[in-house]
Amino acid sequence: MSEPFSTIRWDGGIDGHLRLLDQTRLPVETVYLDCRTVEEVWQAIKRLAVRGAPAIGVAAAYGVCVGVKEDRSVDEVCDYLATSRPTAVNLFWALERMRGVASRAVHGPERGRGRPGSLLELLLAEARAIHEEDRAQCAAMGRFGADLLDYLPEGAGILTHCNAGALATGGDGTALAVIFELARRGKRPRVFADETRPLLQGARLTMWELMQRGIDATLICDSMAAQVMREGRVQAVITGADRIAANGDTANKIGTYSVATLARAHGIPFYVAAPVTTFDLTIASGAEIPIEQRSAEEITCGFGKQTAPAGARVYNPAFDVTPAELIGAIITDRGVVQRVNRSTVQSLLK
Amino acid sequence: MSEPFSTIRWDGGIDGHLRLLDQTRLPVETVYLDCRTVEEVWQAIKRLAVRGAPAIGVAAAYGVCVGVKEDRSVDEVCDYLATSRPTAVNLFWALERMRGVASRAVHGPERGRGRPGSLLELLLAEARAIHEEDRAQCAAMGRFGADLLDYLPEGAGILTHCNAGALATGGDGTALAVIFELARRGKRPRVFADETRPLLQGARLTMWELMQRGIDATLICDSMAAQVMREGRVQAVITGADRIAANGDTANKIGTYSVATLARAHGIPFYVAAPVTTFDLTIASGAEIPIEQRSAEEITCGFGKQTAPAGARVYNPAFDVTPAELIGAIITDRGVVQRVNRSTVQSLLK
Repeated sequence: MSEPFSTIRWDGGIDGHLRLLDQTRLPVETVYLDCRTVEEVWQAIKRLAVRGAPAIGVAAAYGVCVGVKEDRSVDEVCDYLATSRPTAVNLFWALERMRGVASRAVHGPERGRGRPGSLLELLLAEARAIHEEDRAQCAAMGRFGADLLDYLPEGAGILTHCNAGALATGGDGTALAVIFELARRGKRPRVFADETRPLLQGARLTMWELMQRGIDATLICDSMAAQVMREGRVQAVITGADRIAANGDTANKIGTYSVATLARAHGIPFYVAAPVTTFDLTIASGAEIPIEQRSAEEITCGFGKQTAPAGARVYNPAFDVTPAELIGAIITDRGVVQRVNRSTVQSLLK
Repeated sequence: MSEPFSTIRWDGGIDGHLRLLDQTRLPVETVYLDCRTVEEVWQAIKRLAVRGAPAIGVAAAYGVCVGVKEDRSVDEVCDYLATSRPTAVNLFWALERMRGVASRAVHGPERGRGRPGSLLELLLAEARAIHEEDRAQCAAMGRFGADLLDYLPEGAGILTHCNAGALATGGDGTALAVIFELARRGKRPRVFADETRPLLQGARLTMWELMQRGIDATLICDSMAAQVMREGRVQAVITGADRIAANGDTANKIGTYSVATLARAHGIPFYVAAPVTTFDLTIASGAEIPIEQRSAEEITCGFGKQTAPAGARVYNPAFDVTPAELIGAIITDRGVVQRVNRSTVQSLLK
């Protein structure tokens, strides 16, 4: 199964530029953005042309190369790019790695060995390494997950929520990487994609990439997941994760907890796929994860049209927390955590 | 608590006309439609300016009066109005009652006693009776439901799905009648309204009428119901019903079964409010209720904007069936069915 699109690509060599799939134009148009200035990269991250924590990190790393090509300092470029999405952990982590390269180039053993362009070469190599590591993580999750789900019959129904795919990462995604690997192994999964209100990432992005890859995909409203389960059309549920506590409690897009609860009520296993970097061991349990509230307009005017009365009070949590006891397994790039609890999580991470 | 709007009203006496709240303009504008021709009534029903099974019945009954004022025959007008929503049971039932009045006026004991206008007077009286009966049914459900929910503390959270309110009936609604009666009794309910994808009746209609009546109301996406329950904000769930089988299995707007399952998982009682006319004893159980599929465009282009890839396969069931074992009680205009099963349903209906 070839890759029919590139979420993020560095086009050319040292004189190249960053090319991003403009996700704000999906699912209607497939348009690529050529970013030749760091402002263009900043804007692309800011306005969600590229989104998904791993993808933002990779795009920002290449963005540093774009900035240095403009003769700006690495520190200046990193400071600037860090303001594009102020809560994106992968963004800061990637920028720190790029600063480290610059710092070692100036102060480290490589010092003085440079010729014009060598800092840029080192930075581009680091950005490519970040990208490649992300791709390899996705591939590992795909393999571990497909091994775990090998028991499913051919044509099994798999329900997913939000977008945890190639559009959110530098590789095949997290939850969708498992589905893509199952497809590669001839399992012909039939995927049900929750549309994922309020921002419709499932309808706009997951459906698009499943269809691009030729996966059997059916779009449903979030409220239909229970009915689809009751009709026996779903044999497994798999989602991504935003943050996983030390005991395995998992924060993810709002609606994930609903799907996990419904899966349990129907005797359907619920799986989470996420790289080990998603675990935050400073958080003992999901109860400690604050729930971010987002703007009312996402729900009342989400489609450019007012669909609720003016002044309507809205509750719009950005994510929810699925307790570990509802999670059948967490699929990571280092292996699978089964019987999810503090001790099994620790065993995997140590 | 006064009625701040009229879903359906006959304006004036024998020379009056039908006035409908145009629900297609909600929640942005409050516009009334004055229907002085039967074509205007037919159009209003057809394009959902008036919707909800009981409301359609009442509007059609008044529509017959509008038609007869135009010097058309009752049969002609009834045949015509019956084509406006070909699956609306209350529509046919109301039109049959109006035909019966005409038939008795011509053939029955009233025959010959007439003066010009008397048939219209009889028809208008019958339409008003249909309207009044519906209003009384709603009021009865409100009282029975408020008695049942009297155990709730002041300020209790009540979650509802879709629109089962004054906009769907000739009175206060079904599920919302219970909430309005609780409010009248000083219980200050805090209502969570599911937006109810794909057509957003909860966001557009339920939120509007709750706000019009000054009820504490909060709009959520359907996928947030589980989170709101987990946070302890919901003490009861109450919805309407489209059709109830002999064993109490209840068909209602898609997403109702999801909410009922989530309520059970959180130990929250789930109630249905519906007039006894909603029971269909020819159906033994919910398994016999066919699930109507609606068009893909409702999900992929629901707001005049394409939000899923062209050609996306969609599963769009119009309703789902909540099994009787998930229903804490069915609140009707004749009393409450508790421990819902074939025998308790029969006891109420006999």
